[in-house]
Amino acid sequence: MCEANAYLQSNDQEVLLMESVDIIEPYEEGLKLVDIFGRQKFVKARIKDMTLLDHRIVLEETAEDDGDPSVSKTSSMANVERG
Amino acid sequence: MCEANAYLQSNDQEVLLMESVDIIEPYEEGLKLVDIFGRQKFVKARIKDMTLLDHRIVLEETAEDDGDPSVSKTSSMANVERG
Repeated sequence: MCEANAYLQSNDQEVLLMESVDIIEPYEEGLKLVDIFGRQKFVKARIKDMTLLDHRIVLEETAEDDGDPSVSKTSSMANVERG
Repeated sequence: MCEANAYLQSNDQEVLLMESVDIIEPYEEGLKLVDIFGRQKFVKARIKDMTLLDHRIVLEETAEDDGDPSVSKTSSMANVERG
């Protein structure tokens, strides 16, 4: 069987999203995944990397609509004075 | 072996683009395909449909760079002077 596992990469972490994926196709702003049992998942992501021999599909969140709390905009305000 | 064949769909026809594809990843405006022998192909296309159990990947041409007569880059240079 040549199905693959789909991982969702988010903030440098990979989370197993779906096992035994058979079908992948674009769906609206993301992807539709269907596993070998016919179960479907819709995810707002795009394919980042795919290695079929490793049975491995890495998806990358597109995350356009949710407010991302992980983004902290701390700008380092160190003012270095030059002599 | 779980490689797949990649077909390029263009004008309702499917042309075999590459056999025994192992790796697919985004590359610039298109995709990079690598087969099990390490041969690479770059194609301006996106994934339209993928069925791993059928060893079948269908790509769709994006065709952004060939002479597209619908794109007319007429910049309106109207300088509006404010009084």
